[in-house]
Amino acid sequence: MNMTWLTGSVSEILDAIMLEEKEPKDQAALDNNVSAIIQEVRTLGDQAVKEYTEEFDGVTLDDLIVSEDIITEAFERIEPEVQQALECAKENILSYHTHQLEQGFIDFPQTGVMRGQKIVPLTRVGVYVPGGTASYPSSVLMNVLPAKIAGVKEIVMFTPPPKDGVFNAAILVAARLAGVDTIYQVGGAQAIAAAAYGTQTIRPVDKIVGPGNRFVATAKKQVFGKVGIDMIAGPSEIGILAQAGANPAYLAADLLSQAEHDTFARAFLVTDSKELGEAVEKEVFAQLQTLPRKEIAQQAIVEQGKIILASSVSEMFTLMNALAPEHLEIAFEDAMSYLDQVENAGSVFLGPFTSEPIGDYLAGTNHVLPTSGTARFASALGVHDFVKRIQYVSYTKEAVQQASQAIQVLANKEGLAGHARAVAMREEQK
Amino acid sequence: MNMTWLTGSVSEILDAIMLEEKEPKDQAALDNNVSAIIQEVRTLGDQAVKEYTEEFDGVTLDDLIVSEDIITEAFERIEPEVQQALECAKENILSYHTHQLEQGFIDFPQTGVMRGQKIVPLTRVGVYVPGGTASYPSSVLMNVLPAKIAGVKEIVMFTPPPKDGVFNAAILVAARLAGVDTIYQVGGAQAIAAAAYGTQTIRPVDKIVGPGNRFVATAKKQVFGKVGIDMIAGPSEIGILAQAGANPAYLAADLLSQAEHDTFARAFLVTDSKELGEAVEKEVFAQLQTLPRKEIAQQAIVEQGKIILASSVSEMFTLMNALAPEHLEIAFEDAMSYLDQVENAGSVFLGPFTSEPIGDYLAGTNHVLPTSGTARFASALGVHDFVKRIQYVSYTKEAVQQASQAIQVLANKEGLAGHARAVAMREEQK
Repeated sequence: MNMTWLTGSVSEILDAIMLEEKEPKDQAALDNNVSAIIQEVRTLGDQAVKEYTEEFDGVTLDDLIVSEDIITEAFERIEPEVQQALECAKENILSYHTHQLEQGFIDFPQTGVMRGQKIVPLTRVGVYVPGGTASYPSSVLMNVLPAKIAGVKEIVMFTPPPKDGVFNAAILVAARLAGVDTIYQVGGAQAIAAAAYGTQTIRPVDKIVGPGNRFVATAKKQVFGKVGIDMIAGPSEIGILAQAGANPAYLAADLLSQAEHDTFARAFLVTDSKELGEAVEKEVFAQLQTLPRKEIAQQAIVEQGKIILASSVSEMFTLMNALAPEHLEIAFEDAMSYLDQVENAGSVFLGPFTSEPIGDYLAGTNHVLPTSGTARFASALGVHDFVKRIQYVSYTKEAVQQASQAIQVLANKEGLAGHARAVAMREEQK
Repeated sequence: MNMTWLTGSVSEILDAIMLEEKEPKDQAALDNNVSAIIQEVRTLGDQAVKEYTEEFDGVTLDDLIVSEDIITEAFERIEPEVQQALECAKENILSYHTHQLEQGFIDFPQTGVMRGQKIVPLTRVGVYVPGGTASYPSSVLMNVLPAKIAGVKEIVMFTPPPKDGVFNAAILVAARLAGVDTIYQVGGAQAIAAAAYGTQTIRPVDKIVGPGNRFVATAKKQVFGKVGIDMIAGPSEIGILAQAGANPAYLAADLLSQAEHDTFARAFLVTDSKELGEAVEKEVFAQLQTLPRKEIAQQAIVEQGKIILASSVSEMFTLMNALAPEHLEIAFEDAMSYLDQVENAGSVFLGPFTSEPIGDYLAGTNHVLPTSGTARFASALGVHDFVKRIQYVSYTKEAVQQASQAIQVLANKEGLAGHARAVAMREEQK
């Protein structure tokens, strides 16, 4: 078995990789299904939510809310070292994201004119947390804590009820540690519909964040506009920049740490050393043998794994900026001095020891990141995603008199005489 | 004729207003049309762009780029007072938006750990400018200048070619004043496709902003993901808060300045004074008689205009925050002292003299604003829409050793042994 090797111009390499995802063939049917679910929840509220939960999750709900008793019991069940690690991650996420808090501003550009921008947290946010094997307590912290720091007044969580009634204790503990106010045991498109439109029990939120399966992602797209949503994440990606002399075992392990996520995951090595590329490729297949999620990782590596050969460090960065990877490792000894060459990436891991999973779990940087090349225009989830920037302006009568001529010229030029008149009237009348 | 009066609870009033827009019946057909156009442009490039321009705009293009000669000639044609007003607006937009520039940060939370966030402007941005009567030079400034301040390296503009070959001089002048690098005489869905995917002549951009007709809006939705887009704007809205003693003529003029935009425009007065509401209603219909765009404004006022009667100032703010208007006027003498009660609004106009058109044209605040209640989670266009926030982190070997235990606990808890191993390996090996 081997990885695919690529070399050539940026556009040839981009074409070969095809970051863009194709819409699955059954998307139209899913769109219709989800649209019907949303309509039912809007019409029937809690009753529809309960019926869909019975149908999709096989669980009959009395109460949509996860009780305090269940949460307390989760704290009793959780392994102490897991709780401790979550608390440590929480502290680091808080200390990193607190730097993202924005200040408003106010200025007085001329006599009688005041302008400003005030930063206001969203009122209510809903965080979706998948069930089953994709149920990650670390993601609960990553989605909830930036909203908390922003000052969001109410944060609620939606997660499907487990068939056996036993929740993942780490999920409930992470939610409580992060400051979630209410946990609804509701999942799927019905959860997204309830979050967007509200039911008898569930108050509608202003924004929905968090990962989910195709039902959830499709529902989020459909309710967008009624509420805000985060980006719909594609497969996880890592891009590693390395030169001769780098440790192939480290690089192989990091490529595999992405590959083990799912069979669509993408792992790229960009190097100017054929020898390093060959050594990494060999290490990847050696390490694969002992990986618990070997089947998944192997398929991802064989189908999407790439070793891209560049002719210089400068070309390595050009290629990587065009790929705009979700995670970027610069596995150079003096990595920090190359940071200003990074134009597109979700999160950057500097130096040979900064393995990407450090960011997934503990460093405090966010692990909700732009995928599929969207780092060209999008950023990691952060405090800025949970605030509004509200503009304000005030003109005195004298200031309006000074500005009136220019406003009327432009309004009339655009054929909007009513605009001109509203301003002219302020000049003339008392 | 009269406006609709409403009173009651927040939810009753929201239900009566129905901010949410219904998808037009022919949207599915339009989706298919637009999807075909995008596919053609991706396949055939310039040739497809030229064919669609011939079909939709009735213009045969030799060159997709508006020449320097045409731009120079626009500066000769433009009325001096219009150019002067545009220059004045530009200065104010620059001075306001410069306050929005973000700084990155860096911190060293413990020995051997460095974390930070750097702010990087987008590389290439495309600004769409409609043709015909919706072709507003003020909007060119509002869309381009924040990108310029952000430091975007290349800003290109797309606008349909006029049938008679004579461009709106003010549009070209505004583009040049704002610092647009290249103007393409291409409009419609074909412009959006070319901007997103590139052609032989047009390099693909990273984000597309600017208003457009239904073809343009549908195309923007379809290319979202490949490129970033701004929000798709709904009908323009104004919400005015006023009490007894306010000048009814001012308020009526401001309601009409929104209503004249189009027949779907929304104008709301929220007051605790029935007398004021009646006086404003009377003024609205009196002023309508002499408005050049009377037919449009009258339909908007009769169909969507609302006078909402509240029982107290506190209830006035509760209602208005639930409506989350694009433009909010607080027509109180001491308006500034109520600013902290505003939770949801795109842009706030304080005091009886601050007529909303001041913000449309001259104050320097942005006039690209969230509509249809989306101000609950979205904000005015600004510098922040044209940057990426790139995270970075660096751990020394010693710092990894300290963190390793917690990372492995969480990774193993989530079933991702490859993550644990990549970190453990850094501890053990040289």
